[in-house]
Formats: sequence, C-alpha cells, structure tokens
Amino acid sequence: MLPPPGNPEADRVSARWHQVQAALRAAGWDALLVSSPAAVYHLTGVWLEPGERLSAVVVRPAGDPVWVVHALFQQETAAANVAREVWADGEDAAVRLSRYLPASGVVAVDGSWPSRHLLALAAQAPGVTWRCADPLLARLRVCKDADELARLRHASRLADRVLALLRAEVRLGCTERQLAERLTQLWREVGAAGESFPAIVAFGPNAAEPHHEPDDTLLTPGSVVLIDTGGRWQRYVSDITRTWLAGPPIDPEVVRVYQCVLAAQAAGLAAARPGVPLAAVDAAVRAVIDAAGYGPYFTHRTGHGVGLEIHEAPFVAPGMEERLEPGMVFSIEPGVYLPGRFGVRIEDLVVVGEAGAQSLNQAPKSWPEAVLPVINGHAQGSSGQRT
Amino acid sequence: MLPPPGNPEADRVSARWHQVQAALRAAGWDALLVSSPAAVYHLTGVWLEPGERLSAVVVRPAGDPVWVVHALFQQETAAANVAREVWADGEDAAVRLSRYLPASGVVAVDGSWPSRHLLALAAQAPGVTWRCADPLLARLRVCKDADELARLRHASRLADRVLALLRAEVRLGCTERQLAERLTQLWREVGAAGESFPAIVAFGPNAAEPHHEPDDTLLTPGSVVLIDTGGRWQRYVSDITRTWLAGPPIDPEVVRVYQCVLAAQAAGLAAARPGVPLAAVDAAVRAVIDAAGYGPYFTHRTGHGVGLEIHEAPFVAPGMEERLEPGMVFSIEPGVYLPGRFGVRIEDLVVVGEAGAQSLNQAPKSWPEAVLPVINGHAQGSSGQRT
Repeated sequence: MLPPPGNPEADRVSARWHQVQAALRAAGWDALLVSSPAAVYHLTGVWLEPGERLSAVVVRPAGDPVWVVHALFQQETAAANVAREVWADGEDAAVRLSRYLPASGVVAVDGSWPSRHLLALAAQAPGVTWRCADPLLARLRVCKDADELARLRHASRLADRVLALLRAEVRLGCTERQLAERLTQLWREVGAAGESFPAIVAFGPNAAEPHHEPDDTLLTPGSVVLIDTGGRWQRYVSDITRTWLAGPPIDPEVVRVYQCVLAAQAAGLAAARPGVPLAAVDAAVRAVIDAAGYGPYFTHRTGHGVGLEIHEAPFVAPGMEERLEPGMVFSIEPGVYLPGRFGVRIEDLVVVGEAGAQSLNQAPKSWPEAVLPVINGHAQGSSGQRT
Repeated sequence: MLPPPGNPEADRVSARWHQVQAALRAAGWDALLVSSPAAVYHLTGVWLEPGERLSAVVVRPAGDPVWVVHALFQQETAAANVAREVWADGEDAAVRLSRYLPASGVVAVDGSWPSRHLLALAAQAPGVTWRCADPLLARLRVCKDADELARLRHASRLADRVLALLRAEVRLGCTERQLAERLTQLWREVGAAGESFPAIVAFGPNAAEPHHEPDDTLLTPGSVVLIDTGGRWQRYVSDITRTWLAGPPIDPEVVRVYQCVLAAQAAGLAAARPGVPLAAVDAAVRAVIDAAGYGPYFTHRTGHGVGLEIHEAPFVAPGMEERLEPGMVFSIEPGVYLPGRFGVRIEDLVVVGEAGAQSLNQAPKSWPEAVLPVINGHAQGSSGQRT
C-alpha cells in the first residue's frame, strides 16, 4: 500500500491501516480525520505534538491516507508511513485539508481535535455531515496486542520499582513538593522516558482532594501519604497509587477506610473478566464502599484505560455497557475522601486475559505494609524527644 | 453582579466579566462557551485542567455566568467567582450544558474545546449556529494590564537568571538530556512555579531541528548549543532561546548565520511599534534573512504572544494584518536551520509600549558572548590532550 519506510515503528504499525479502513467502511463514513498524537502514532509510527497548528491524517475508505501537517514538522514526520501534504504560515490550512474531503457525505473527526479546526473546516465543506470518531478510534486501540502489552508490563514494573525506592526515602518533615521532585528523578533513574503525568503527592488533609497539586506541606507523624504517579516506556504508560501512613495514624478511622478501599479494589479485580460490562466492575467496587457507609465519599469513577495515553478507553464507570475483552488494560482505583481529614486511594493497572484480569503491579499494599517502617521508627524517635 | 468570593485571584479578575459580556453583545452572539484553562482562569481566577471531562463557562449577553463542571473538580473550582453546575459520572454533560443555551441563535465556542464536546452539544441544540470564539477570547487577553505585565517581566527576569546559571555549567561531554534536567532544577531554584514547556536542548546538527527533543547526544568542541526554555511565575510564562558555541565553531558558517539571525532579530524589534501590522514585524525579520540568502532555512513564523499560555495571540507571521498595540507581549525568534549541519535561533520576549517595543530579556547574545568561555578553555585542554 505504501513505499517501505525506514522507521521500525512505522513498519510495526502499518498493518493497522487495513483495520481502520475496514472500520470506516463498516461505519459507512466517507472520511476520517485522525489528529491526537496517540492516535496518529498508533497508525503512522510518528508521535507529533502540533500545538495550535492544524494537523490531521485523512483516511478514506480506500486509497492511501495523507497527513496534512505544517512545514515546521517536516523533519519530525519524515519517518511516518504516509504521504504528507505540507502547509506553511500565511496559508489557510483548512482550505488545503478540505481538498481531501468529499463534497458531501459523512466525515468523522477525532474528538480531541480542537473545535477551531472543525469549525474552519466545516465552513469550507458546507455539504458535509460531521460525526465524532472517538468510538471508532477507541475501538482500534482498546485491546492491546502482544507488543503493546509487553511495553505496558514493563512500564508498570518501573512503577513498582519507583514506589519501592521512594518509600525507602520518605522522612518526617519532608514536603510534598520534595517527594514530587524526587519522583521525577526516580523515573529517569529507573530508565523511563519520563513521567506520564505530574505526580500527585498529598499529605494528611490534602489527600482528601483527589487531584491535589503538591505544595510545601510538611509530613507530620501519623499523616497519610498519598502518591499517584506513572511513567513512560517506549511511548506506553503506567499509573499507580499507593496511600501510606507516616507511622500509626493520628485519625483512627484511617485503618477502616484503608481496609474498605483495599477490599473494594479486590472486588473490582475479581469481577473483571471477559464478557462482563465495564459498569459491573465499577458496581462491584462501589458496592463494597457503599456497604461500609462511604459511598458519598467515593466521588469519581473506578478506572480508566491506559496505553499510549494516561486516560483512554475503556472507562470503568456507571453506565458503561461495553463489555470487557482480552487485551484491555485499565486502572482499578477506588478512593474515599473525607474533606478536611484525609483520603485513601489505591490504584493498580490490570490486563484482561481469557480467564480473568491480572494486576500489572506488585507494589505492596496490604494494611500493615502501608505503615512506613522507616517513618515509624523516625516518628517514634521524634515523639520520644517531645515527651 | 456576584457574591463576594474569598479568592484574591477571583477578585482581581471579576471586572473582566463586563468586558466579555460587552464583547458578546457587540458580536451579536447569544452565548459564549469558555473552556481553555487559561481563558477560564483569566475570567474566574481558577485554573482547571479538566482532562477529558466536559468543562465550560457559559456566558450570556446579560445575567450571571455559570460553570458546568464535573463533580471531581468541586473543591478545585470552589474559589471561582461564578456559580457552578456540577455533573457526575453516568450523566450526559452535553444535555446538562444545553439547558443554558438558547434554542436558536449563535453560540461561540472556545477554539481549543475538544470537537467531541462540540459535536455532542450540537446534537442537543440542533437550532444553534456555531462560531469560533477565538478572536473574541484572544482580544480579551492580547493587551496585558499592569498586573499581568509585572508577572511577565518577573518571569522573564527568571529566564535570564536561569540561562546565566546554566551557561556557567556547560561542559564538553555533557548530554542534551543532562542540561534539560538541570534546567528543570534551575527553574525551581530561582523560584519559578515550574517550566512553561519542556526545554529544547540541541547540540550540533540536532539544532537544525527547530523542535528537537533532548537526547543523549554528547557536547563536542565547536558545536552549537541551542537552548530554548521558559518558566512560570504566578501563572504567567517566559520563553527565551540562546544559541551558544562550545568553543570556536567547527563549521565556519556558524558565525555568518549567527550574525544574520541576530541582525534579523534586531530588525524585528526596531519595526515593532503601535499601529504597525504584525506581518510587518515578520517581514522586517525575514528581509534580513532573505538578503543573506538563508530565506529557505527560516521555516517558521517570527513569533507568538505569551501570557497565561506559551503560545497565544498575537502571532507574528506573514498575513497577520492585526496591528500592534501597547501592552502586547510576544516573542521575536528568527532561526536559520541548515539540515545535517546546525541551527541558530535567538529569541526574546518584547512588550509593546507607546513609543516602540522593549525587550523583557537581558541575557547576553552578542557574537563574542555566544562563545562559551568555560567551554573554550576546556575545549583547548581537551584538544591539547588529543594532540
């Protein structure tokens, strides 16, 4: 279909063009615009962050795809397995792109494409009906192949290693920001390409905010230490959360909440097997938390898929009727957040196999293990000085 | 118009609601959806990254605005100066949002809003005509007020300091990645909130790729060292590029290219004054490079605005007929890229005043200063050992 490219990544992914064209024909659509860096990489072998400049790979039911891209990215996209149509400053990129579209019919666009490009293109192609391509694009990536699974497994092994290293370094009096900066270093030290998102580090009451940004809060004895972090390995990501205790908890309810969250996570893993709706995994998790009386404090969905992106299909949430299939990889991450007091979240990635789901993470999480031994000694030393 | 909020940032920006409503009435639009983190912060005082979850502030020509936002962000958005309409997992956010829109008329959307939200909303509001709100939103932020200018000036002072510190540490044999990691630390050390984008560090031929990602390339004597970096200070960003030489250049053409780029930048600064079209600043820069015969190797626009975002209006590029006004802040960053050999880019931020433009950066850039003195000594030492 295309001249042999010199990029092994492009070679590895070229077979996917047949899949996407078959999906396009099945949907009865006349064209598809692929634009998110992950979706484009998945098909072309090249990762591009085009910023505000219009970039889209046009796929039609038959014939070669073409990548409409700005001249600035000519070198970066040279290794792609598709022809390129290069536009430059001073040109209207939407006009250039519209030449590859039918005068009428249905064109589906990548849901992450900025609306400004869609509106500009719609003005150039008034006869076209627009659809969101997300379900089709998600379908292409939702079940990981062997190569993708190997990369995901390795990224999660690195996550376990990073947490083990960090755990040994946590000290009373350190700040959230210090641990977050240390995480950035640790990801590089274990060989990752970088972090897959800015780590969440939250001490004590800050852990009651699910998306807390690390600040200068000091670690005090008996506080929870919530760490949510991930890294990238050959473009694929990991994502893990652990909640530790800086010595015996100040707030005695921490133990009960911790055990509830841990049990909820185990229930989710047990419920995850091929053929079950995603909503059923969410429901299994939620049932444990509801039964313990913490339902109103579990304010988010149970999990999200991971792959080339840190949040991608499938989503484990109420109402998601899509069924689990072998090769799906997602997080199971229940959390209970008691405002002003503390929060507990425990997250692992799991892969769905023929018989059930398997965790990609091995980092310790049982109750006694959550209490940091180093801190424990340290905390006792400090309180000894105080008495 | 709204109950007094407890967030000084929200107080500081509340007056802007009158501006945006006036702009909406002038455009004859019936509603506006604001969604980018920067635009939302500019109006509400709260910075939110909603990820894939629908978030939009609905502004109508009269009456109070409302922020439609996911329950997960309830705490993070509590300090905003607007009422909130909170949706949860399992609900259709587009349906909720559509209740705030007119049944017909014109609704303008933030150009960065993901198409998936626009397409879902359009299905709920079939009588609405959609427009791109970017020109209106850009207009609100394109001229910085005194408070914004103070933050931008400080962010650029930090950029000068970071470059001075890095410059003193560059050694032969270091890698691009090491310098990039050091930059991350230096930004924190000088007191910035972080980097405004992942730094570009490019040695030798890598500098011929305008957006090179730092890798393990080693610094060798006589190579160019291109550094493009920026940081954040109270949400406002800086952006600076310097091209240094690791001792006397191996490629003698570097000197000529460097002086050409430096002269082009100076021509841009001289051309920048109120009333002049942005394209004229671009043309002034380009004329110097064209005259030296390097026109085909200047592959990008001359500059971009900075403020809350690293790339925002105004854009200094061919075809931009908008005129300069006092308070505009943008980069002037000509570059010449000779594939396989080297590249040179020099970038400063400038602010337009009543009489002309003034640079926000003071980091050295004259030709002899571009040759690193430390490296120079070091390079001589190394070559001494080799001979």
